[in-house]
Amino acid sequence: MAAPAALPGGSVKIALLAEIKNVLPRIDLLPAIEEGFAAYSEGRAVVPPVGELILDKGEVHIKYGAIAGEDFYVIKIASGFYGNPALGLPSGNGCLLVFEQKTGVPAAVLLDEGYLTDIRTAAAGAVAAKYCAPRTVERIGVAGAGVQGRLQLEWLKRVTDCRDALVWGPLPEELEGYRREMKSRGFSVETAREAAAIPRTCNLIVTATPSKTPLLSAADLRPGTHITAVGSDTPDKQELDSEILARADVVVADSLAQCRLRGEIHKALAAGKIDESRVVELGNIISGRASGRTSDSQITVADLTGVAVQDIKIASAVYRALAP
Amino acid sequence: MAAPAALPGGSVKIALLAEIKNVLPRIDLLPAIEEGFAAYSEGRAVVPPVGELILDKGEVHIKYGAIAGEDFYVIKIASGFYGNPALGLPSGNGCLLVFEQKTGVPAAVLLDEGYLTDIRTAAAGAVAAKYCAPRTVERIGVAGAGVQGRLQLEWLKRVTDCRDALVWGPLPEELEGYRREMKSRGFSVETAREAAAIPRTCNLIVTATPSKTPLLSAADLRPGTHITAVGSDTPDKQELDSEILARADVVVADSLAQCRLRGEIHKALAAGKIDESRVVELGNIISGRASGRTSDSQITVADLTGVAVQDIKIASAVYRALAP
Repeated sequence: MAAPAALPGGSVKIALLAEIKNVLPRIDLLPAIEEGFAAYSEGRAVVPPVGELILDKGEVHIKYGAIAGEDFYVIKIASGFYGNPALGLPSGNGCLLVFEQKTGVPAAVLLDEGYLTDIRTAAAGAVAAKYCAPRTVERIGVAGAGVQGRLQLEWLKRVTDCRDALVWGPLPEELEGYRREMKSRGFSVETAREAAAIPRTCNLIVTATPSKTPLLSAADLRPGTHITAVGSDTPDKQELDSEILARADVVVADSLAQCRLRGEIHKALAAGKIDESRVVELGNIISGRASGRTSDSQITVADLTGVAVQDIKIASAVYRALAP
Repeated sequence: MAAPAALPGGSVKIALLAEIKNVLPRIDLLPAIEEGFAAYSEGRAVVPPVGELILDKGEVHIKYGAIAGEDFYVIKIASGFYGNPALGLPSGNGCLLVFEQKTGVPAAVLLDEGYLTDIRTAAAGAVAAKYCAPRTVERIGVAGAGVQGRLQLEWLKRVTDCRDALVWGPLPEELEGYRREMKSRGFSVETAREAAAIPRTCNLIVTATPSKTPLLSAADLRPGTHITAVGSDTPDKQELDSEILARADVVVADSLAQCRLRGEIHKALAAGKIDESRVVELGNIISGRASGRTSDSQITVADLTGVAVQDIKIASAVYRALAP
């Protein structure tokens, strides 16, 4: 879609999904997301608690914040309405608002329908792999064959040359579509009949399911494996047996404050399987203030629950790319 | 401004301030605001805690919520950047977002620059006066000669025939402008040299200042007076001596939960001047579940701190009025 000549938002940029998708390839997102995590872990970001609105037919989350000294503050509204598919609508929706940090003047309304959340989550997975995966990736394993499972694999292209993947998903009917789609993107994909098959041949694993019971167990894990868990973003979801975190040489959080309350680290802490002092933040590994993987035989786990700095970075970058 | 023929927001309505101001006269706002307060006090509204983002040069508040069974949920972003006037910009800004409550689909972005907050606050003042003021209003007293002090007087037209006002303001240079502007709107306005003069001749009083020290004291108050305090919306602001609330026959809150934490009731509770059990909610007076003023000789005080139901109601009404 071409940008309309005159916008009714006056100096406020209003962008629809098509226009946002159009500018995304022009954005160098990984360095931006890395810088966001580093700023967060260095205490340069103001990220208040997530706002939550629970309605009859859905849930709305409001993530917002700013990085000190940058141009913008950003507010993201992301909703999930689980009856939408029956109405012919996607369950997710929302938008991102960009404001001038020095004056509060609105700069942009990005009507992204939740798309930028999918992208910044996949980009964070690539960043986690870049800093934590073993030097030689033999095969990439993906649990979850939905939108996020596809984007994660797609974005790993930017940080590894491996194009060999094994996918398992809780919805078997998605698997063949996953294989075909990712083949068209340059991957050779096999499908697995059980999640437990993944760690047998894969040493870079991403889990991207809404599972509430562990999919992977410690017994199946080989030395030299990295796992990025992106599916669990609530206190009750869990994709990894907590024993995996106990066995891991390095346990990485995107936000320790948030991982205390939700996700895999939350579960492992609650089960007494790990001590909080063992958890390092991804931003500190990026900035060199903490070590991640130090040998190819280590097991590493990154738990990504999603932090507003990712939204700040992607929304700011999209707005800049949209500007005439 | 005429509505553009085609909006880049697709089915999302994008409205600028001029268009919003244009449709406001078509909206019957007071019944909507009354219904909002009633819904809130009956527990039919979901109103999570206010989100707050504190930045170097300003503050951002996010108020949001929904009334069960209605069409929309609403998110309001309201900011105050106190260095803006030096840059030739108003300190306040923000916008209101309207979403379908059943699906989460965005319906409207109202780029109101904070204007609808001013209006819904003035409308709430009129509602408080409608339910609490004595039958015969001798003279209206206003403390605060800024935008809100003007709007409060203007909106009282809808609930009283009195057109006689006395105004005092902390910025003396605003007073003459206030007198002239409100004269053009049908009021005979005198200016006072001190706030204490107001209760001597006025029995319907509105305070709309950012004061941190009490402007009115109990000793000056006559029986049969109603005071609406709208200025104090933080834990540290205070316009009324807490003794006034102690002496009042009826103490009204827009939201008891919120007035516990900020505003005049917060101060009076903290000073041990009133007991929480004495506070009634405006919504319960409106719906008849609680009594407000029961005689013309009573002293009544309404403390309005601003509740998201007002934002929900005004945004929904503006969106409906904007629809083709």
